[in-house]
Formats: sequence, structure tokens, C-alpha cells
Amino acid sequence: MSRKAYIDNIDVNLAIDEYFKKLEINPKEELIKVKDSLNRVTSRAVYAKLSSPSYNSAAMDGIAVISDYTTGATESEPKTLKLNEDFIYINTGNPVKEPFDAVIMIEDCIIKDEDTIEILSPAYPYQHIRQIGEDIVATEMILPSRHKIRPVDIGALISGGIDEISVYEKPKVALIPTGSEIVENVEEVVEGKIIDSNSYVFENLVLELGGIPNKGSIAVDEYETIKAMVLEAVEKNDIVLVNAGSSAGTMDYTVDVIDEIGEVVVHGVAMKPGKPTILGIVKGKPIIGIPGYPVSSYLVFDVFVKPVILKFLGLEDDKDEIAKATLTKRVVSSLKNEEIIRVTLGFVDDKLIATPLQSGAGVIMSLVKADGLCKIPRNVEGYDVSDTVDVKLLRPLNQIKESLVSIGSHDICMDIVADMMKLKSTHVGSMGGILSLRRRECHLAPIHLLDADTGEYNISYVRKYFNGEKMALIKGLNRIQGFIVEKGNPLNIQSVNDLVREDVVFANRQRGSGTRVLLDYELAKNDVNPEKIKGYQREFSTHMAVAAAVKNKSANVGLGVYSASKALDLDFYPLKPEEYDFLTYAKNLELDRIKEFIEILKSEEFKNRVDALGGYGFENTGEIIIIE
Amino acid sequence: MSRKAYIDNIDVNLAIDEYFKKLEINPKEELIKVKDSLNRVTSRAVYAKLSSPSYNSAAMDGIAVISDYTTGATESEPKTLKLNEDFIYINTGNPVKEPFDAVIMIEDCIIKDEDTIEILSPAYPYQHIRQIGEDIVATEMILPSRHKIRPVDIGALISGGIDEISVYEKPKVALIPTGSEIVENVEEVVEGKIIDSNSYVFENLVLELGGIPNKGSIAVDEYETIKAMVLEAVEKNDIVLVNAGSSAGTMDYTVDVIDEIGEVVVHGVAMKPGKPTILGIVKGKPIIGIPGYPVSSYLVFDVFVKPVILKFLGLEDDKDEIAKATLTKRVVSSLKNEEIIRVTLGFVDDKLIATPLQSGAGVIMSLVKADGLCKIPRNVEGYDVSDTVDVKLLRPLNQIKESLVSIGSHDICMDIVADMMKLKSTHVGSMGGILSLRRRECHLAPIHLLDADTGEYNISYVRKYFNGEKMALIKGLNRIQGFIVEKGNPLNIQSVNDLVREDVVFANRQRGSGTRVLLDYELAKNDVNPEKIKGYQREFSTHMAVAAAVKNKSANVGLGVYSASKALDLDFYPLKPEEYDFLTYAKNLELDRIKEFIEILKSEEFKNRVDALGGYGFENTGEIIIIE
Repeated sequence: MSRKAYIDNIDVNLAIDEYFKKLEINPKEELIKVKDSLNRVTSRAVYAKLSSPSYNSAAMDGIAVISDYTTGATESEPKTLKLNEDFIYINTGNPVKEPFDAVIMIEDCIIKDEDTIEILSPAYPYQHIRQIGEDIVATEMILPSRHKIRPVDIGALISGGIDEISVYEKPKVALIPTGSEIVENVEEVVEGKIIDSNSYVFENLVLELGGIPNKGSIAVDEYETIKAMVLEAVEKNDIVLVNAGSSAGTMDYTVDVIDEIGEVVVHGVAMKPGKPTILGIVKGKPIIGIPGYPVSSYLVFDVFVKPVILKFLGLEDDKDEIAKATLTKRVVSSLKNEEIIRVTLGFVDDKLIATPLQSGAGVIMSLVKADGLCKIPRNVEGYDVSDTVDVKLLRPLNQIKESLVSIGSHDICMDIVADMMKLKSTHVGSMGGILSLRRRECHLAPIHLLDADTGEYNISYVRKYFNGEKMALIKGLNRIQGFIVEKGNPLNIQSVNDLVREDVVFANRQRGSGTRVLLDYELAKNDVNPEKIKGYQREFSTHMAVAAAVKNKSANVGLGVYSASKALDLDFYPLKPEEYDFLTYAKNLELDRIKEFIEILKSEEFKNRVDALGGYGFENTGEIIIIE
Repeated sequence: MSRKAYIDNIDVNLAIDEYFKKLEINPKEELIKVKDSLNRVTSRAVYAKLSSPSYNSAAMDGIAVISDYTTGATESEPKTLKLNEDFIYINTGNPVKEPFDAVIMIEDCIIKDEDTIEILSPAYPYQHIRQIGEDIVATEMILPSRHKIRPVDIGALISGGIDEISVYEKPKVALIPTGSEIVENVEEVVEGKIIDSNSYVFENLVLELGGIPNKGSIAVDEYETIKAMVLEAVEKNDIVLVNAGSSAGTMDYTVDVIDEIGEVVVHGVAMKPGKPTILGIVKGKPIIGIPGYPVSSYLVFDVFVKPVILKFLGLEDDKDEIAKATLTKRVVSSLKNEEIIRVTLGFVDDKLIATPLQSGAGVIMSLVKADGLCKIPRNVEGYDVSDTVDVKLLRPLNQIKESLVSIGSHDICMDIVADMMKLKSTHVGSMGGILSLRRRECHLAPIHLLDADTGEYNISYVRKYFNGEKMALIKGLNRIQGFIVEKGNPLNIQSVNDLVREDVVFANRQRGSGTRVLLDYELAKNDVNPEKIKGYQREFSTHMAVAAAVKNKSANVGLGVYSASKALDLDFYPLKPEEYDFLTYAKNLELDRIKEFIEILKSEEFKNRVDALGGYGFENTGEIIIIE
């Protein structure tokens, strides 16, 4: 079994420079109809063939007159004009021809009878006349080259008498999905099989940029199969993308194939996710090997494939729109690689706040949820909470401004809120939420914190952490925490004492979460030693993740809310009712976004939708407790 | 002949409010394939059907092990593992099944022989394993409703086992071009005929927004014809746009047609351009009458039609991206109307600068060139030079940052520069350029100013207006000013003395332009009284506009450069060679954009292209004179 050592670790910019130095891209031109040219890119400057307007025309509805003849008209000494001698009626756009050389607006005419009009002031020559070429003079440049055509450009081109223009040909981009474990359809997804989603992401990214995607069928991991597909793709396309198999594992053939039939310029870049990238050239054409994880594949497309496609289209890579933001969580990074973190963004007290999302290369939802990308350069160990970082925007700032930012405990009901208003919700546990709110990095913090001394929820924590501040606790939901167990509760788990049993594996929540606080409280109360619980060290960050662990039998039990158990058709042994509330600064109650949030909590639609999840109560939902 | 009084003048926001209050838009849903869903808008939240990954899988290439068995391995006391008993080889993505519960990276394995591996540290349970649902847990929300689908969303949906989703139907938008003077093809453009360009602008705007445009054939200005077309369009579409005929002229039937078969909610809005707008409802469907001038029609689409289309798509109107900018020219506005000015934008000394473009509703080139729109509210008389204004951006700021900003005299060669680099060039004459540069509102000012005392070009003006500043004069082109006359010079014009002749009509340039300075200098030198020149009062702002006036016989002669005369196949009587140079602050020579500009001036390509225009010399082109 041949296992190669790991590949290179070339700096990203260096890799791009080297690759473009070796690549010779000569964009091709084609002639197309102006009417079909939206979003195409001019390959030559376009010069007007016709003037617009192409004749002198009335700019107003009114009468065409001979300006000389109107000289001297005043309010006290009006001039009388006779139809077809001194004037004719004219509408906007009608030609103005000799002897007429001016237009008077109908509003300024005193109509005496059908044939007679009086005017009270003179018309100057060419008054209210659009002269030939007022808009476009024939031979003038309408569009420069390398210009992406918008709807107004099409209007201007047509007005300038242009019927056809030269544009850059759309590059044809072959997409070769590889991997014996990859399947095409959702019905084929069984253990060991993964559905091909990357190809469709690429297909649509290529379309968005203005290329023509050519998705091939899935290639199994065999050297000769991949070689044959690559050779065929190179013949028929301008760019070839091979997805997965780009690393150096036993089944990774892409690099050897390219090495045999062309040149591997770069294999392995100092970028995470995205390290096992191949930049190759076969028969003069770019061929890029892209790693298989969805986040890696998206980022490698963005960093390496996009500039290649744009070059074929005669366009430069867009400058990224960058904004400064304050980090709400610490991020650590290896010194060896540039690391790209997905973040959500929000405006809190006019400050742009960036909250890092899950960092795994396999978590495509981190891209779905991301508002921006934050790069941690090589030789930087990471960033701390409250550090200011540069964020590449994936969404315009004015959209980001509209979102309510929630950081704290997780409950499935937050998805329902997110469907009903613009909400950015991050799950870091109740204590994490309290600390974020103290740093003024969110508008509100969902919390459910049990005071071990009083058995009361939330309020004592607010007094402790926001001493002297006027706070508002928006009452949320009553819900039940309990043991999420396999259907039928086969291990008969009924108390925390059962968790230390030899046959039980537990799925734990992360430190700082309200659920963890509850667990540790119950363990202490019952004198159970956490170290004896199998799985206590393994932490999950949402109720759903705990339920999923039980569902897939990597644990037998976890602590969580009823709705998560119900969602995955598991069983539930109730332990303790609790109060899931939303903490904010009292002054925030004035914000439109908070008002909208409270409206939603109180709405019938919200209650009905949450009720359907199961296990919730709405005793004081939407009520406000002021805590000073 | 029935001529109605002018229509209403309703506030724009009031008009929108009233219209939407009366309009009942109920977006329709349809089920489509996820793979075809790019840019569609979800009509319901989408919940995952499958977890992703759907089985526990290796996150790394390496070996699958039993974590219990690895406990205690250290560098001094390695553990030995046997193939198929204690470990199996595994690649990223392969399932990890019982009894194996952890993965060790291949890099951390010491391969003793084919069947034996040594490890130096223990593996913790689920190390390097992607657990079921790590990315997406079945039943979790993947996308909220009213979400416009991007390529990554498609990847996430497919990963979550979703094959079809509910989206809002694309609204069908009928486009009815009306006007007896409107023709479809460029070959039909003769005097009195105008090519239909607006329909194609609408068609592509509708496409961009996500609607389905249905362009009809051109309707002549007849009441019954228009009525029949509207009725048919209302049957087959969700939205109907009638272009032109929306005012109250003799041939404007749209409002009466709507009034007969439906309801006119608004006729006439306090917006310029765009006043004669009709907001109507026929059989419950929105029908909008749009004025005919290209700028009016674009703005009315943007302000009134876009929000209607977006409502059908379940989307809110985008919040405009607004930036503060400093005006370089005074703009005046009527108190009665909100006025929308097109501006170009540029960054000079880190300040965003807005230069108003031509304001005519007929000048579509003002939209092609615009980087932003500036609204002058009602009851505001206009803005002054150096006022700070809000600009709605039509282009992202990071693109605007890259442009060189030139304000000053016009020469056709500036188009060539604009085709070779990112240039924003505005033509306000040489003196206007000098004043802009003094206010630091441009990077450079093209000038050709004759010192009447010395006969020298430019330098004395620089000393006078930039006394004490270190300036750089980048030498541009030698060119020839002269009389642009009809082919064959039938009126035999050879000197400024000829301009006062009874049979001569002159096309003048605007005050402050170098060409006007030259004319006035020559008139004074020859004792010619400008008041005696017919057309002296009528001002054009470019050489091409002057040439066009001669071409279309609205003048017999104008003063301008040879290239303009040649472009329109006119004749030319040379008067005076002159120097067309570029003035900038000496410190600006350090800017990349200025360096690129000088490179272009010196390039062979630039010289060849300018040479082809005719009448230019390149004696010192690109040389720099420092003036202190």
C-alpha cells in the first residue's frame, strides 16, 4: 500500500503568482446580439454608430414656433400666433423642422381658439428641443472594453445604433466529481456513501461568474478512470476541476494523473481549510484539484478557481469588500497556515461584531450562516476576544445592520424566530451569552441558569453579572430538561445515578451552557462523581447534537430538552422544568428589532409553531421583568 | 384637440404607500428541484431530511483504532497495533464501525511492517471522527423562508437530503411599448422615429430581479389598440408595464385606458425625472405607466416597479447602500419635486467626491456613467459646491476606490485612456478643472489655457491659481483648434470675422472651457463683438457636441479640435495649435493611479490609437514639468 508523505505548504499568494506566471490564458472573443448581452463582458470598446436622438425633437408637449418671431412677447404685450403659420402642435419626441426652431410648453400657451394661441414671453432658439446627439454623438465611446454589461448599458447600446458587440467567450468549466464513496442521488445515501453536493455548488458558482459548467458523471477512485476523464475534459473545456482525491492518500490519484499528462505547479498550500489543493496545467489548460470537504472546496474555488475564470472573461478579480469588526470569541490558528474563519456579523451599539462559526472543514452550514470570512495570516497564533479583525463581507453591510444579534443558550425555538425576523443567533451557552452581553457584543442573550442556592432561574445571575446596570429579562418559554434516550429507554435511565453505570455512555454539553450547569448541579446534589461518567469529556454544543449522538448510538443518553428528543423520534425521561428567558439592557427595549422580537414571542403564530415542537409552556412569554 | 391640464404632484413615498395599501399581492408558490434553485426565494423554511454526515466517518487519512486499547501509549512506551485486530487502514470519509471508535492520523503512525504499527500517544474516543450530524442534524432548519438561494445553500440542501423545495413563483411582467414614433430595429430609424431601447432595459431589469419579462410588440398611439393590449396583458401576466404615453398629452392614452378598465391610484409624482408616472390597478393586478425618456423610465422602474416585483418574490426592497460624498458642482432643483441626480464618484485624498452628470431625462449615458444617485428632496433648492450629500451607490465603494478622477477640459483622447485604465473623466472646461483641483476634488485636471499676454499655454495659470503649491504639469498632446465646418466649407469660413456674417450660425462652447477662452481671445484680438454672433449664447460642453451641431445643421460652424471634425466626417479650417496637458499636485506623482496614467500616455498603444483620431502631436507626451 503506497502512502506518500504529505505535500507542500506553499504560501497562498506565492502559489497564485507561480500558477499565473505559468498559465497562458488568451480569452477568446465572440460576436453576440446586444439584446442577449446582459452580464457579458465587452472585449472591445464600443463606439456609437448613430447619434441619439438622431433628429432634432421636441423635449416637451406644446407648440413648435419660430424663435425670431416670438421676440418681444411680454405679459403686457403678448404675441398672437396662428396655427400652421406661426406654430404647430407638437408632442414630446416629434421632429422639429424648419422653419420652426423652438418649442413652447403647452402650459405656457393661452389658447384663444382652435387656430390661435397667445404667448407672454419669447422663445430662445432651440428652447425645449433635444438636439441631435444630445445623449450620444455617433462615433463616441459608449462602453469601454472589459465592461460587464448591465440593463442600462443595453439601452445605451441600442440607442447608439449597435446591434451586435464583441464579448469574451464564456469559459467552459469541466467539473469531475471523483470518489468511490460518492453517489448522485439521495436514495443512494447509505452507510459509507456520501451524496455529491460539491459539484452543484461549483456548477452554480461557475454560472454566477459567467462561465459554462460541464458536470461529468462521478468517477470511481481508479487511476485510469480518472486519467481518461481528465483527458476528455481537457479536450472539450477551457478549465478542468477535479473534486476530491487531491491529497496524498492511498486513493488520491489526481496529482499523479496530472503529473503524468501535464505539469503539477503546486501541490499543497498553506491555507486551512483547503490545504490539499493541486494547481496543474495539462495541454496548456488550467486543471485544479480541489479537496473534498465542502468548506475547503468552496474556499479553494474562491481563492484559486475564481481568478482563473475571471481571467478568461477579461475581468480582474474583484477587490474584496473589507470591514473592521470586533471578535466575540477567541480563535486559535496554526502558525503554519493561513486560516479562514467563517463569521456571522451584526451591529450592536453601532459597532460591527463578528462571531466565529464552527471551524470544521466539513461544516457547510458554517458557510450558509456566514456573513463574512476572516483570515488569520500565517505566523499569527489567533485572535482574542474583543480583538479588531478585518472581515471580507459576503453580504452587504446595510443588510447586516437589520439583524437582531442573539448570543447565548440554544433552543430549537430560535430557528422559528429566525424564520420570522432577521435574527443572527449563536449558541455559546447561557454563561457565554451573559459575558457577550456584558461586552456589548449582542442585543440579547438567551439564558436558563439555575441558582443552586435558591432553585430560582436567571434573576440572581443577572444581579451578579450586571450589578448597577438596568437590565430587562424578557420572559421566554417554560421547557423541560430530561434524559434523551433511545426509543423505549432500553437501559432504563431515570436519574443521574444511572449515568455512572458500566453500560452507559453519556453525551455531554459544553461548559458554560445552562444544561451543563443543571447537570453539574444534579450530580453534586446526588454525590455523583463526574469522572466516573463515560463520555463526560466529550462536549456537544446544541440539544440537537446531543440527540443526534443518541440517535446514532455513539451515546445512550444525554441531557437536553424534550423537543430535541421528539425531533429525532427518541424517548425522553423528564428531570426538571426550567425557564428559558432573554436578557437584554433595559435601554434596548427601545430598539425596533427588540420590539419586533417581543411581538413575535407574543404572537399566535410563534406559539403554535413552538407548541408543535413539543414540551413547551408559555406562562409569561413576552413579559418583561426590569432588574436594577 | 383635447389637452388635459397637468397631472398630480404627489410625494413619492406617499404615492408608494397609497399604492401598496390598495394593491393586494399574494405571491404564489411552486415546488422546484434544488439543483435548479439558484437565485430563487424560499417560500417556506427548509428542514433537513437527512443528517450530514449520515454515518460516523474518518475525518483524516490514517488508521481506525479502539480507543480503549490505545490508553497508556507514550513516546517511551509505544503501543504496538496489529492490522485487522487492533487497527485497519482508513481514508477520509470511510465509515468507522464497531469495534473501532477513533482515528489516528497516518503521520502519527510508525509503520513497522505491513501488518504492524506503533503509536506514541493514546487516541481519545471519537478522535478524528466526523460524527453523524456534525454538519446538519436531520429536522434542523437549513434555510429560513424568504431566503434567496446561493450556490452554498444548494450544497447544504443536497447534503441535508432535500431534493425539492417550495419557492415563490417568478412574476410574469408584461412590457408594452407604445408610441407611433417607436420602431423595433435600427434600420427603421429615420427622422421622427425612435428605436425602442427602454423595453430591453426593462426586460433585463426584470430578469435581474428574478421575474419573467414578456415583451409585447409596439403599440401605436390609439386608444383601442392600447386598451386591447393592456387587457390581454393583464390576463396573461402578474404585472403590466406600459411604457410612454403616461403623461397628459394629446396622444397619451394610458391613463384613460386604465381609468376605464380599472383604477388610477396615482397619476403624477413629485419626482424628477419621472413625474408623469401612473400607478394603476386593473383586475386586481398592478399596472404601471412609465414615462418615455430613458432616465425617467429607469428611475420610475427603480422606485415603483422594483418593490412590486420584489413583493411577488417574497422579498423586501433592498435597503440602499448610502455613502456621504462631497459635491464638485452646484446642482439646482425645483422646490416642487424630489430630484434625482446621477453622479460619478471617486476617492481623492481619502475623500469621496461626487460629480453630477448631465441632468436631462433623455441622457441615458448619464446612467451608464453614473456610480451613484443623489436625491435632492422637495423643498430644497439644490446643493452647492463642496456640500456633503448622501449618495445611493450603484457600484461598490471598493471598485470606486480604484479610479483615477479627472475633471477639466474635454478631449476625445480621454475615452482612450478610459478604455486602458480605470478613469472617471468629467468635462467642465479647463478653468472648472483648475478650481476642482484647488478644492482637491480630482486627481488631475486636463487643461489647455492660453495666456493672452504671453501666448504661452497653461504654466502661467498654474502659477496664478496654485501660488505656493508644488505642482506637476504632465505634458499631454499637441492638437489643433480650428473651425469645424460642413463638408466642403460651403460658407468659406476662415477667420473669426466670418462668424458675425448674417448667414452664419455658430455653435459655442461653455464659459470656462479652454476653447471658449481661445475664442474670446481671438474675438478680442480681432475686435469682433460677440453679441453679433448668432448662436454665441447657445453652449455645448464637448467638442463632439459642437461637431454634432454642425453635422445636423443646427449650426454652420463651431470651434473645436480636428479629431471631432474628422469623427463626424466634417471639414476643418485650422486656427491655432495648442497644448493639452494634465495638471496635478506634485505629491500625486507617487500615486499608483497617476503612475499608471503616465505609463499609458507614454505607451505605443495610446499613441497609435490617438494618432488614428487625427490631428494630434506627441512632442513631450508624458514628460513632467514641476512648477513651484
